[in-house]
Parts: sequence; C-alpha cells; structure tokens
Amino acid sequence: MKFNQFAPRQVSLETQIQELINLEFLTDRLLEKDEMDKIWLHFLKQVFPQAQSPTAKHEQIADLLASNTQNVFDFLNEHEITTNAFYNVALQLLGFEVDLDFELANPLAAMDQMQLFHVNEINSTHDLITACYYLLLTYTKGGQNYLDYLATLGYFVPLYGRPAGMKPIFFNGQSQPVFNTKKLIKEVVYVESDLDTDQDGQRDLLKVEIIRPAETNFNLQVPAVYTASPYNQGVNEVSSDKMLHNVNQPLTTKEENNTTFKDIAYQPSHIEIPKKREIKEIALTAESSFGRESSYTLNDYLLARGFAVVYAAGIGTMDSDGVRTCGSTAETSSTVAIIEWLAGKRTAFTNKTDNIEIKAWWCNKHVAMTGKSYLGTLATAAATTGTPALKTIISEAAISSWYDYYREGGLVISPGGYVGEDADVLAELCFSRRKKAADYLKIQPFFTDVLKQMAHDQDRITGNYTTFWDERNYLHNLDQIKAKIVMVHGLNDWNVKPKNVFNLWHGLDDLPVVKKLILHQGQHIYINNLRSLDFSNMMNLWLSNQLYNVDNQAEDHLPDLLVQDNTQPETWITPHEWHKYHNLTLNLQEDALSTQDGDNTMLSFKDWVDQPDFEKYDKNIPAWMADLISTDASALENNRLIFKTAPLSSDVTISGAPTVSLRLHTDNNHGLVSAMLVDFGEEKRLNADPSPVFGARLGLGFDWREEPLKEFTYEKNPSPWKLIAKGHLNLQNKTALWKNDQIIPGESYNFEFELQPTYYHLLKNHQLGLIVYATDFEMTQRGNEHITYTLDLANSKLNLAIDKKEVLNNENKKN
Amino acid sequence: MKFNQFAPRQVSLETQIQELINLEFLTDRLLEKDEMDKIWLHFLKQVFPQAQSPTAKHEQIADLLASNTQNVFDFLNEHEITTNAFYNVALQLLGFEVDLDFELANPLAAMDQMQLFHVNEINSTHDLITACYYLLLTYTKGGQNYLDYLATLGYFVPLYGRPAGMKPIFFNGQSQPVFNTKKLIKEVVYVESDLDTDQDGQRDLLKVEIIRPAETNFNLQVPAVYTASPYNQGVNEVSSDKMLHNVNQPLTTKEENNTTFKDIAYQPSHIEIPKKREIKEIALTAESSFGRESSYTLNDYLLARGFAVVYAAGIGTMDSDGVRTCGSTAETSSTVAIIEWLAGKRTAFTNKTDNIEIKAWWCNKHVAMTGKSYLGTLATAAATTGTPALKTIISEAAISSWYDYYREGGLVISPGGYVGEDADVLAELCFSRRKKAADYLKIQPFFTDVLKQMAHDQDRITGNYTTFWDERNYLHNLDQIKAKIVMVHGLNDWNVKPKNVFNLWHGLDDLPVVKKLILHQGQHIYINNLRSLDFSNMMNLWLSNQLYNVDNQAEDHLPDLLVQDNTQPETWITPHEWHKYHNLTLNLQEDALSTQDGDNTMLSFKDWVDQPDFEKYDKNIPAWMADLISTDASALENNRLIFKTAPLSSDVTISGAPTVSLRLHTDNNHGLVSAMLVDFGEEKRLNADPSPVFGARLGLGFDWREEPLKEFTYEKNPSPWKLIAKGHLNLQNKTALWKNDQIIPGESYNFEFELQPTYYHLLKNHQLGLIVYATDFEMTQRGNEHITYTLDLANSKLNLAIDKKEVLNNENKKN
Repeated sequence: MKFNQFAPRQVSLETQIQELINLEFLTDRLLEKDEMDKIWLHFLKQVFPQAQSPTAKHEQIADLLASNTQNVFDFLNEHEITTNAFYNVALQLLGFEVDLDFELANPLAAMDQMQLFHVNEINSTHDLITACYYLLLTYTKGGQNYLDYLATLGYFVPLYGRPAGMKPIFFNGQSQPVFNTKKLIKEVVYVESDLDTDQDGQRDLLKVEIIRPAETNFNLQVPAVYTASPYNQGVNEVSSDKMLHNVNQPLTTKEENNTTFKDIAYQPSHIEIPKKREIKEIALTAESSFGRESSYTLNDYLLARGFAVVYAAGIGTMDSDGVRTCGSTAETSSTVAIIEWLAGKRTAFTNKTDNIEIKAWWCNKHVAMTGKSYLGTLATAAATTGTPALKTIISEAAISSWYDYYREGGLVISPGGYVGEDADVLAELCFSRRKKAADYLKIQPFFTDVLKQMAHDQDRITGNYTTFWDERNYLHNLDQIKAKIVMVHGLNDWNVKPKNVFNLWHGLDDLPVVKKLILHQGQHIYINNLRSLDFSNMMNLWLSNQLYNVDNQAEDHLPDLLVQDNTQPETWITPHEWHKYHNLTLNLQEDALSTQDGDNTMLSFKDWVDQPDFEKYDKNIPAWMADLISTDASALENNRLIFKTAPLSSDVTISGAPTVSLRLHTDNNHGLVSAMLVDFGEEKRLNADPSPVFGARLGLGFDWREEPLKEFTYEKNPSPWKLIAKGHLNLQNKTALWKNDQIIPGESYNFEFELQPTYYHLLKNHQLGLIVYATDFEMTQRGNEHITYTLDLANSKLNLAIDKKEVLNNENKKN
Repeated sequence: MKFNQFAPRQVSLETQIQELINLEFLTDRLLEKDEMDKIWLHFLKQVFPQAQSPTAKHEQIADLLASNTQNVFDFLNEHEITTNAFYNVALQLLGFEVDLDFELANPLAAMDQMQLFHVNEINSTHDLITACYYLLLTYTKGGQNYLDYLATLGYFVPLYGRPAGMKPIFFNGQSQPVFNTKKLIKEVVYVESDLDTDQDGQRDLLKVEIIRPAETNFNLQVPAVYTASPYNQGVNEVSSDKMLHNVNQPLTTKEENNTTFKDIAYQPSHIEIPKKREIKEIALTAESSFGRESSYTLNDYLLARGFAVVYAAGIGTMDSDGVRTCGSTAETSSTVAIIEWLAGKRTAFTNKTDNIEIKAWWCNKHVAMTGKSYLGTLATAAATTGTPALKTIISEAAISSWYDYYREGGLVISPGGYVGEDADVLAELCFSRRKKAADYLKIQPFFTDVLKQMAHDQDRITGNYTTFWDERNYLHNLDQIKAKIVMVHGLNDWNVKPKNVFNLWHGLDDLPVVKKLILHQGQHIYINNLRSLDFSNMMNLWLSNQLYNVDNQAEDHLPDLLVQDNTQPETWITPHEWHKYHNLTLNLQEDALSTQDGDNTMLSFKDWVDQPDFEKYDKNIPAWMADLISTDASALENNRLIFKTAPLSSDVTISGAPTVSLRLHTDNNHGLVSAMLVDFGEEKRLNADPSPVFGARLGLGFDWREEPLKEFTYEKNPSPWKLIAKGHLNLQNKTALWKNDQIIPGESYNFEFELQPTYYHLLKNHQLGLIVYATDFEMTQRGNEHITYTLDLANSKLNLAIDKKEVLNNENKKN
C-alpha cells in the first residue's frame, strides 16, 4: 500500500500551533505548561470524538499500544514519549494494524514504505506539535486524510455552532468540514439567458439547483462550485438509441476541392433575441426545492466545507426552456448564464411565470466549475468565454473540440463504447424536456426540425471539419480564458480521447493561464475516490485558494503535471513535461521498427473480411482487436502490417502524441489508413479501471454522503500486449480536414497524422509495435470494401518523444 | 416491466378518507364540497412538495398531459375528470413516460401489463378517492411505492413537526417516514451478559450501537429492530485466510463404530460465571456515540419510519469482551443478551469501567431481528431461545444448523466460494478484538487456545456430526420459538444452501409458529432493492403489525410462500407448498432417466484426474463444472454418469428436496458419492444475481441513505444447462451422520441422500438430468484418489416432487 499526497504544505511552527489551537487539538494552557505527555494525551482525547466522557476516552486510548508490551498509559508511566511510541499509536489511529501493516519495533519503516509523512525524531514539544499537526494531514488506511476521517466520526460537530462570521475554518490551507450538511438549503431558480433557442418569442429560462450552507442565511457569502450537467434532469436512452447511425457503410468518394479554413470558419451570426422579462417583484427566497440531485461526489465533499454547489442542465433540459444543440455556442452561452447570475450580472426568477427576481445574494461571486465528460466540456467552454467570475475549472475527461470526439482525420469516428453515436444522438439523449409530456407536446415539432438540421450539418458523408464542427471547437478561444485550469484525463480514455486534453494543455503553452494536469491510467472515470492519491485534498487546497483567496500558495505547491505510472499500482510521478515535439524517428523494416534505415520494400494489406468474420467482429470488438494485434493466424492476418522493435534493453517512456508518416498507394479512389502503437510483452498490467477496496466507504463528512473507495490493481492474469495509442486518416484529407484531395488509384502519396497522445512506460524486454491497418471496428465506419493498400516502407516513419533515445538507437535490425 | 406488490391492502372507503386526510392528501372541506376536480387538483398540488408556491405547483401540474392534446388544466376546462385522464396523469407521476411506457389513449392497458393496481372506472368522488388512495401505494418506475418516492421529495418534512405523541403515522397499515433522519440519536452502551467466555473473571460486556428517533426523547417509545452482525466491527481477512484448510487431501478411512445420536448429543454444561457488576450509578444518556455504522438498508428504511435500530457484534468483537466460537450456545446467549436489555430484563452500562447503568427507556420492548447470512443465523438462534421480547425475525439466507454449512453427509464441505473455510476460520475472521492492539495483546494467548480447541472439535478428519455440531444445530430448539418467522432465501445460494431454510420451514410445520417464506432466484443476496417486488413495503406492513400492534392483518395478508420464477424476469408466484414429500420416482437407464424400469446394467466411473487437469480444475472451478456436466469429451468424461429424461412435452415444476437412492460398490474401503440435478436445454436464463438498473437509486427517506436499484435480467447469451441441486454422502455414513459404517471393497450397498431443496421451473423441451459422480471440486475434499465406483442402475432411483407427473410418466426410454 502506497500513498501519494500532494496537498500537505510545510508551514511554520507558529502556524501549526495556531491552527491546532483553532481546531482544539491543542490549548494555550497546554502550550504554556509545555509538558509533552499532556499535549499528546490531549491530542489523543480529541481524536476520539465518539467517546464523550473522560472514561470513554480513557478506554479508547488504553486500547492503543505504544510499544510491544505497553498501552499508552502504561508506557507513559514508565517512559518519556518516544518517536516510535508516537508513530506506533499514530499508525493505529490511521487504521493500520499491528503486525499486519507495521511492526511495533519500527513504525517509521512502514511509514516510509507506504510514503506516509513523519517527523524523524520527537525530542521536544515542538517536534511533538509538528508530528501531531502533520498526522492530521496524513492518509488513513481507508484512503482519506486523518482530519477528513475524524470528520466522519463527528469531530467537527461541536464547531458547527461557531458563528457564521468565524467560518470557514482552514487547516494547512484547506477548508474544514465545519458546515452542517444536515442543514443545507436547497433551492431552485430560473436564470434568464440571452437566448431564445426554442424560438417561442421568450428568452430561454434555465433551471438551476442550488445547495448552500445554512450559514449563508447569516451573512456568510460563500463561493459556488458549479457543475453544468446536461444529463442531470434525466436522459432519453430509448429514443436516442433509435437514432444511432449505421456505421457499416462504405466511405464516400469526396469530390476534390480547394476549400480553405476560411471558407468553413464559423462566424457568429446576429440573432435578434426577445426582450428581457420585466421584473415584477424581488424575492429573497426561492419557491421551489428538489429531492435528490444528481450529484458529483467532489461537490458533496465541498458542501461540508463551506462551498455552495450549483447544478444546471442547460437549454433543452427538463424544466428549462430551449433546445439542445450539442456543444453549440448557444450551449456555451446557456452554461455561462448561470455564472453571470451567480456574479450578480444576470437575472433569475423564482418561477417561470410571475417574473419575481431572485439574486444570488449568498454568493461571494467566486465560481469554479467541476465535472467529467460533457460536464467538464461545458466547464471548458465556459472558461473560453472569459466570464470574469469563473475563477477556475476542474475539467475531467473534457472535450476541447467536438470534432475530436465524433470525427478524426476526415472520418466519422465513434467514441469508444458508443458505436454510431453523433452530435444529433447526444442532443436527443439530453433533451429531457421530453420527460414532461405537456411541455414536450409543445416543443416536439420544432425540436424534430432542429435534429434534422443537425443531422445534415454534422455531415456524416464527408467526415470533414465543417462550420458545424468549427462552432464546436473551444480551442479557438483559448486566448479569452481568464480562469485557471485544472485538467484531469485518463490515458486509457477511448471515449473522450486524450487528444482533447493534449490540445488544451499545449494550446495554453504561450498564454498567461495557470494550468495543472493530472493524467491517470483509467478510462472515462472520476479519480476522487482513489486510495493512493489525495485528489480531494488537492482540490480543497486549490479551491480554498481560488475561491476563498486563502494564501496557501496552491498554484506553486501543486504539481503542474502529475502522471500515474502504468506499470506499478499506487505510483504517481511529476514529470517536467508532456512532450509536444518528437525527438526520435523509427523506420520501418519488414516486421521491424528501428532507427536504422527502412527496408526498400512495398508491403500490402487488404481491408475486407468475409461476411461471417465481419459479423463476428461487428458483435465482438475485443475479438477484432485481439486478432488484429496478434501475429497468430486469423481472419485479419492480411489486414494489417505489424512492425516491432527488438526487445528493449531497458525501460523507456513515450510522452506526447506520436505521429506516423506513411507513404502508400491504394487500388481505389478513396480509403483510410489507421495506425496503432502497441506495447508487446507478457505482463500483468493494471486493470482498465480501479477496483473497489472491499467494504471500504469514503465518508465525505459527518453522517453525510459516501462513495466506494477504489484503487487500481493488477489484472488477474498476464496479457501479451496493450494498446498505447492509435490514429486514423481519410486518404482524401492528406492536406487538411476541410479540403478534399484526389486519390488516384495506384499512385503513392505521403500521409502524416497524429496518434492519440500518451504517457507510456514501456518495460525492459518489451517490444514497441506499430500496426498499420485501415478499418477500425471500434472507431471508424466499416464499409468492408475490397480495397488493398500498399505501404512503401523506405518512405514511412514513426516519430516519437521518448526519454532514453539510446535504448531504441541501439536496437538490432530484426526482432 | 412488471411489478409484484403484496403489501397493499383493501380498506374501507372510510379508512381511505381518514388516512388521506391525516396525510393531507385530502381535506374535510374538499370532502364536504364534493367536487371531483378540486379533489384531484388538491391531490396533484400535494404530490409536488418540492414546488412550494401556488405558481410553482401550477407549473408542475401544467406539464402533465391528461389526454393526447391537453394538459391537466386545459383538460379540466373542457371535461369532467375521466378514468383515462386520471391514470394518464398518474402514470406520469409514477415516472412512466408517454409513448415509451404507455399510450395516452389507453393507460389502463399499460397498468395491467405492468401489474399496477388501478380502479376500473372513476365515476364518482368515491372512485376518485379510492384511486388517489391506491395510487399512493402503487409502485413507481423507480421501484418504490409512490408514498416512499414522495418521501424522497420531502413530502413528509412538514409532518416531522407533529408532536411525538401523534407519531408514528400509518397509511394502509404501513408506518410512514415522518421521523427526521437528520435528528437520529446515536448511542453506544455495553450490555452485561451471563457469560465469561474470555475467562477473565468478569462477565463479558457487549457493545451495542443504537440509533433512535429524536422523538424518543419526548416520551415516544419505539420498537427496536436489531441486527446481530459479527462482521460489523471489522474483520480479519488476512489472518483468517492464513487459517484456510487444505482441501486437497484424501478421505480418511473411518473405523467402524456403533455411535448413536445419544452418544454425541450436546449437553449444556454448568459453568460458574462471575457475579454481576455492582451498579454504582444510573444514567439516562450514553457517553459514547459512533460515526458510520455498518448498516443494512432495510434498517435504514425503517429508521425513517419510527423504528429504532440496534447493532451488536457480540462476544469477541471490537470493544466487547469474550471470544468468538462460531455458532456456539455462548454466541446465542450473547445475541439474546441485547434483546433482554431492550426488554428491561438485563443491565447495560455507559462505559466498561464505571458501572453506570443505562436502561433502554426509549424502547417499547418489542424487538425484531433482521439480517442476512451469519446475521440472519443469529436471529434464528435468538428465536430458538424463546426470549419473549423478540416478536419476529426476518432471517435472510440464514444457517439453521452449522453442520449444513460446513459439513454434509459425513463429509467436510466448503461453502460455495469459500474453499477451505471452517468454523475456526470464521471465528478468527470475526474476532475483531484483534483490531484494538492493546486489547488483543491481553486476549491473544487465550484465544489461540480457543481456536486450537475448535480446530480439534470441528473434526475435519471424519466429517461426522459430532457434539461440536450438535451444539450448533438450532433445529433442536424450534419448539422454544415464540417469535414469528419471516425467512428469505436464494434458491441459487451455494454459500448458505437452501437446505438450511428448508429444514427450518418444515421443522415448524407442526409447531404453533407463524411463518412466511420468500424464495428468490439470487445467490447470497438481500432482496430489498429489487424493482419487481415490494419487499420493503411488505416488511413495513409486517413490522408495523408485529412491533407497533397495528391491526393490519399482516399475518393473513402476506403470502405464506412467495417464490420467484426462474424462467421469466419479474415473476413471483404464491404456491401452496414447498414439497416435503416425493410423488414421483425416476429410474436409471443407460444415459436415460425414466419412470419405466431401470436397466439391468452396472456402470462405472472413476474419481481421479491427471495432475495437470487437477491443477487446472483446482484453479478454475467453473471449468470443472462445465466439463463435468458436458457430454463432450473432456478430462472428466469417465468421472461421472449422466442420465437424462427425454425432452419434456410441457413445463413442470420440481419442488422440495429431491433424494437419490443409489446402489453401488467401490474398490476402496472409503469413498464418497455426489449427485447433481441439472436442467439441460439451450436457453437464456436469468443472471445469477440482479443487475443494477442504470443510474437508479432508491431513496430510503428524505435526504437520507440510498441504495442502487436492481432487478434480475436475462443473461446475455443462452446457456446449455443450469444446476438445479446437488448433494454428497460419505459412503461410511450410509446409516447415520454420527456413525461410521464399514465399506468392503467390491460389495454393493444402498446409499440414500437428499439433494439441496429447490423450486425449479423446467421448461418444455428441456431435459432433466441426473449426474452421479464423486469428488466435487467446489465443495468436497479432493483427494484425487484412485477409486472406481460402480453403479447398479436397476437398483438406483431419483425421487422428486413435481407438479405434473404425467409429463415424466409418458417419457420414452431414450432421449
């Protein structure tokens, strides 16, 4: 078991003392008396809040072993406090078990092994105070810091009573759970947007769900953490599934043209919008509340810690006006409207009828956005407007350009796991106005037309980057960003692919935007319940800084780039960069990949399979993948070329987006080429997603919500390979995504394209492999066309950024 | 989607009116005015508690379609209320979607199809009142009744304020969630038992965690729902795993003897116990509380509804005294001690030191026990003491005799999924005193001796039914039972096998004990979060009756026997009996099973496999099972005999415990025989366990705990067979479980034994199969001995109870 804590900060002894006293782990009187035993015993009494009498506390402390033979009291009767005694007890408090997790003879060894902080020696009161202070920040076996664990026992309940004016309370720069989650206030308001997307002659009203601490009713203004979730009012799975597109279709031969970017660039058009509603009255309290919101557990964690949480689903969702248009500028505007209301710059009403205004008077006008996937996407979208109250976003697995979600290289591409989905399907999925039958009756004809128009504009025929997609490219507006950006992305996310975060990250390189990036080994997941990483504490530090202006140096303190290793569980590193540029080129030889010259050879592969195999792969994509990558005989053995390096003489790390430059010709006037980077080597690898830690729940406060604790573990059995990255290109888009090139059968061309970016630790003795193929059953259309491709090895290359070039430079020609 | 509601009861119109008024769905004034529109509109306003102003309520109601073209208001402007209009709206309120789940033209058709209650015509105020009343009891799409759903929206929050004396509030005989779960009181007390199992000279104190409604502080006495969970203070997985026994061992040849039951019958021995502690003081409030208890969601549901919940882990668990002895009479006594305290018959203290007594003054002295597996087992154990305050138990997947958990037919048997476990291993697993290091230091030597003694007494050498097991057989004391018994068991539970509940159920046949039984198709699971069954409502009705003495006829109203069908999802039937006696005998022919005469043939099978196969099956039990059952060539093709009926001409149901009577000889002086009943037939069957309903959470109250909603669904692919039941016998126990018989190699004997009981719906065209074999890789020891068995078909039989004997009577000889 290893812990990776990045939130704890070194602070002065003076600060330690002051914060310990403020949270009642220390008293002025004890400090004055300066007796180590008494300071320790006071601390120990405090950490058993569930024991409320002196006897009950005594019983709890008496159960702690300070040494092999003595409990705390017996030990103190005969000894001064020692470093070992302190940490023996500390480890028991943190939930670690004697003999199972550590030896009483040497607790520090176990702490070092588990990467838990400790002072080296406790020789003075000051040492003891420092040890107590950092113990409160140290992770428990149950995967949260000790203060957060004590909160679940009720430690902070007595502090609930402190006056609103004395809250929030920070410890080591993090806001503490002194807010009673049983008294949270829930309200619904309707924000008036600058949109009339349903063209009913009235500005679209947007339903907002607000959860705020009761202290806000007593003059405390708090920041708002806002999650824009198009899903949270319900989804239309059945009707949207019916709209899924058929991907078993041949590519269209696109007519050659000279389209330039300028031709297709999105230009906002001026739309006349209806007048604002006339305000009839002003109210201080809302008229509607809600039951169980669709929540994000990081938000739940923050609710106990003095942040209000705001959810809005946006245009076209249940109880709001408008229609959904999947990533459009209208959606961005709808997202930002909520922030503007929170900042006092826009009107909201208590209901949709009476024009009674209600202000966000409880908000300190500092807003953060959170959320994963579409939710994180809308956070990114909002940030690119530069709306001033949005101080920061924590965008997880977010789309930065919708073309990189539904298209690639002039091809229609399915997000991993969602074959046939497209922007129109997602619009229908999230159109939860459908859930309210009488409301839907009114809007149905209009929305049907909207979907028809989207189906046309998204253009599944060419797969090109068109005005539709340009409108949905947030990367154009990065220079508008005022918010500080925290990005989180899974390196194995084949739904929202890593290119999205890579382009955002590097798009900010030359802009004055503070940015942080966490790359984990998961797929499309949240990481706030991982045992090995203190993500919630990092975000607490960050948001305390950004939204409460706490001077905790979070921007300097938190790593800019944090990456989970793919070979060892519970291992997180902080590299300097995620490479933007390549430093190594590998050439293609028959079956091999090498820094030596490529072979002067032409190799062909075909792009069709027999109908029974087609049907098999259609139903079983993992089988397609396994056959494609395996060098064993299979229905795909002539459908791809595999090139492998010799087994590596030592570990290397591939960073950033590999590119391939392939020279090839085909026997058709259209076609596509795909490339895949694969780690070959029999190895127990990490599971694709973290596994629940048996029976372990993470309490987010006292008697408050919880979530299952998880951690990445090894797969049960070794696997022979793992996909590192892949990429696809329509041959007719060799020049640009918006321009159709002509492809003459038999004529060779150079095709260059990027694979998905990665940060991949390749182990010694493994081989790096490049697979060149065409149809990708998981991602591309599958025309099953009789097309043959011929690759010119001598003029084809793979470009990489790796840390130890010499490892690949020295490879022999053949594997 | 189909719903199976057994809780709703028919009540008089007068009762309906009174209860509707009490919950404010109707007012006296409306009743007096007698206008149907107004009654309906009032009802509709009430069911949107989240909308707090008239406008907000109006907006919600306006979104409901009463007909194809009109919302409620428009409809009422032009029409009288109609049956269709009412149920169109009702279905929307219940979360069903227009066009997706029902047609506006005919809502009743959808309700009938989904098995939702409705009145047939709404022509009068009375019809309308009845329709409203039963709508509140009708299941939502989200899998709870409408009142329970309204609770999650906050419907009952205004009723929290009613004086304690006006609570609880019942509706249709079920207690309603008018208790504020945010104000629950949590306390710890220590009950003094009549035990000194750790022999420290002091009676064992037992920690109890109590959660009770705040109203108990205002003179309301409430019942206690008590769960005895040895797991809930933590478990020692690592140390107990190290104690797992090696099952890859040959059977021992047992020396012939004439042991009678009397020789091994358990006799309680008189043990001198220390004096009671002297009470020094009396307190009304506890000194300790707790953070997050390890809860059972049915209890959580009840906490919102006026029941206190009590958890105790018993002797040998963290913060209690004593040692664990797995099912012993001491454990029963430790379990009952808590009930006695709740009933005012035993002392508890506020801490373990000061002898300050605290009484359960808040309890109405009516206690129920709940829980699954070991928890349900202890409930069963407690019931067999006849302790008077225990009014009922809801025991799920409970053990009724520990021999039927760890042994069978003179064989050591592993519970499904826990190879090598035994009573000593479970004792160590639950010995959570280990978690408190200083406490463990004191008790470790003594407990080590206890485990050694258990390892000896449980007797893995003979596998016989000994005094150790007789002490752990609750079936001996069924005549002591005063509590009413609700049993729940999975027909596919191979951990706690169905024999346990079968023996308890039929053991009560001639006793004056009220009993109910629910048999589901799951494995070792809870069923309170199934969408298709109103288990929580049934238990609410039951406990309101048993513990609050509500006159709701729960005993008559709830089905005595409720069985989930194994062929269709969401199908529950209420058969008259779970057969105790057989009505059909099938004979064995070569490969066939028939009512015609058996073949005059001897067939042999062996009981060993080659070492590589042994290792394969050791690691992969499903592979062993598949090879054993398949008629294809495999390493097991000579290790079993398979007999199948002809394909069935119509469906039949097998009920109760099949028995086999086998005449066979072997070439060794020891051996075992196993038999397995199998359903052969390519079919999509139900998954072994229910699947989560995507995104659906079941709220257990307002802003209170939740659990994922689940339902049994079909497996993705058809399977060729399904195990129905199996059983095992040590050949040396052909006479009795406690007596060793001699087996002479080559000499034939009759062996008769029961398979696990079942309730199995065999589909038309399927074949019923009997497999005779020896070693069971999942259950028995695996000696891999070179033994051959020879079966005398003519003198071997399978005995069954089935519903349509003629179906099997008419079968041809060969399949």
